[in-house]
Amino acid sequence: MKFNQVLDNVKTYEAGKPIELVVREYGINPCDIIKLASNENPYGTSPLVTQKIQSLSKNMFMYPDDSMFELKEALGEKYQVASNNIIIGSGSDQILEFCVHAKCNEKSTILMTKTTFAMYEIYGKQTGATIIKTEDDEHNIEQFKALYKQHGADVIFLCLPNNPLGECLDKEEVYEFLKEVDENTLVVIDGAYMEYAAYKDEKKRIVASDIIHTFPNAIYTGTFSKAYALGGMRVGYGIAHPDIIKTLYKLRPPFNISTLSLAAAIEALKDEAFVNECIAKNFEEMVKYETYAQTKGLEYIKSYTNFITLKLPADYISAQVAQELLERGIIIRDLTGYGLNAIRITIGREDQNSIVIEKLDEVLESLKTVKVYD
Amino acid sequence: MKFNQVLDNVKTYEAGKPIELVVREYGINPCDIIKLASNENPYGTSPLVTQKIQSLSKNMFMYPDDSMFELKEALGEKYQVASNNIIIGSGSDQILEFCVHAKCNEKSTILMTKTTFAMYEIYGKQTGATIIKTEDDEHNIEQFKALYKQHGADVIFLCLPNNPLGECLDKEEVYEFLKEVDENTLVVIDGAYMEYAAYKDEKKRIVASDIIHTFPNAIYTGTFSKAYALGGMRVGYGIAHPDIIKTLYKLRPPFNISTLSLAAAIEALKDEAFVNECIAKNFEEMVKYETYAQTKGLEYIKSYTNFITLKLPADYISAQVAQELLERGIIIRDLTGYGLNAIRITIGREDQNSIVIEKLDEVLESLKTVKVYD
Repeated sequence: MKFNQVLDNVKTYEAGKPIELVVREYGINPCDIIKLASNENPYGTSPLVTQKIQSLSKNMFMYPDDSMFELKEALGEKYQVASNNIIIGSGSDQILEFCVHAKCNEKSTILMTKTTFAMYEIYGKQTGATIIKTEDDEHNIEQFKALYKQHGADVIFLCLPNNPLGECLDKEEVYEFLKEVDENTLVVIDGAYMEYAAYKDEKKRIVASDIIHTFPNAIYTGTFSKAYALGGMRVGYGIAHPDIIKTLYKLRPPFNISTLSLAAAIEALKDEAFVNECIAKNFEEMVKYETYAQTKGLEYIKSYTNFITLKLPADYISAQVAQELLERGIIIRDLTGYGLNAIRITIGREDQNSIVIEKLDEVLESLKTVKVYD
Repeated sequence: MKFNQVLDNVKTYEAGKPIELVVREYGINPCDIIKLASNENPYGTSPLVTQKIQSLSKNMFMYPDDSMFELKEALGEKYQVASNNIIIGSGSDQILEFCVHAKCNEKSTILMTKTTFAMYEIYGKQTGATIIKTEDDEHNIEQFKALYKQHGADVIFLCLPNNPLGECLDKEEVYEFLKEVDENTLVVIDGAYMEYAAYKDEKKRIVASDIIHTFPNAIYTGTFSKAYALGGMRVGYGIAHPDIIKTLYKLRPPFNISTLSLAAAIEALKDEAFVNECIAKNFEEMVKYETYAQTKGLEYIKSYTNFITLKLPADYISAQVAQELLERGIIIRDLTGYGLNAIRITIGREDQNSIVIEKLDEVLESLKTVKVYD
């Protein structure tokens, strides 16, 4: 059967390996597996949210309130924007999808940094759009400016802070760039990890309401999957001028998030204390990885997120390191698919990080030994 | 900002009114509201599923197993198909979306019956495809054949049984039509309510494995939202030849259903007794609406689903009847938007149906009285 030809160029996204798969493939006890591959919040679900879901666990037969009134009200208060500035998605991922599908077709151009969230390119290719990337892996605003001047763009993606690298542009650089962008270019500011960046350095904080008022061609996307500890529940949002939101709504399927996801997100917003505590612990624990990397002479990218990316020297192969860790029950992310000889590790809990650093050291040492005898 | 021009013609889907909205707008106590507007299973969530969700209510921070291994295995067993014949969607709705987006663009044609699930047309228009509809509201296979001969089609939708009308083609008619369809036309058999139809009349049962083996250009879609009582959890699936599934996967966003939704669906499949009991009660209760309609001389469509559609005589306006019921705390579906002077009522529980029939009678009588004095 013939399908739309643009799909010939679309690759399927490869998610981090789930614990279930490691259990099946390596026969390791699920309790002994440490998964630090998908940047989940390792401190678990907020007790408030757990309680709420338990109280609603008989309500699964009912469709959610598709107007998502209560969640939009709560987000509106958090971000100081109106309900008609907000659209809720099945993860912020779905908002990214809507943005690309609303703007792009085979004649379109999408601009992004060389190494960034893989779905930007996948969604782009679904529409047949041309993808243009900067030369540097990390966001380099001068390169963005030059490429934009040269090619223009229908959509620009800025991942702030950037996944899977962890770096983050300053707000001022971003706003300055936005001033130069044509009103007909949609700029997507993906703030999936913004809570972490803003905590670490106030200069990184992109303010969604600023964007709406000053840059009506930009959209800020946020998620409950990271700092809000609801990775499994698939809730994200976009905040933008009502004209953008109204158009994205045309692409939104009805009931795009579940009854329990809706309730979980509403409840999670009530427990900011939990979120802040998780973020504080995240950066405390991150220091251990930085210290380890420094001790071993490994290069790492300064991270404004809940993960750290270690670049491996040429005498290691990141896929092999990841595989050795996997066989020891530790799931981290190999970045070979992104063209890097690097691994990305989610910052886990104290107990997890101790084991991961110990095992990582064991693996790096053993691979080094093998090389010596080669 | 300019968006893809095809979106100019896209309308936003209007979901059934949620209880929360009626509470807000009319100040009615939530406990006094009867919602029979969205064809949810009124017997609630299976206790097995509730238990499972309670046991997992601390796991919301974890992404689901994106391979959906266990759910696919269970569905494979139920339908006697392999895992690579299956794709899981956020409701079967999402599978419909994938089908249209995989096949259609501005040059495409989509064939469907005049009055059917609104999302077929919405998804079609998102791609700019031309929508062709039969003259009859209900599925008329001869009209399908004639239109297909005349215009061809890239996608054909058959809603079996049909929402929002309730009627259902026989399997033999469907298979006979499929034999005449070109291998390059994708036929979507939307079986969202198939469990009900197959229970009422074995002649209606479309067998997904038959389709894969005999009609590799067809896809069967099913859902957990209706008989399986998980409307709020957004889980559905498509069953087809691996070539189709592989292509649809290119449009599937990662983690398209939530951790708890995945677990709920797996668990729901273990409780077929609950499902069968719900379906049996559904048809027992449906008789009450049929009897009432006959007594009042109201026309209704013989239904193979969990709802019944009553056509109102010209001296009633369905929107008005629905509004009067709403003010009495009863949410049903007015079909004005579908071009019909009719209302669709989900078959509720015994206690709900008694009240609904009583209130409906009150409304019909009061509107009649008003007319007399006009």
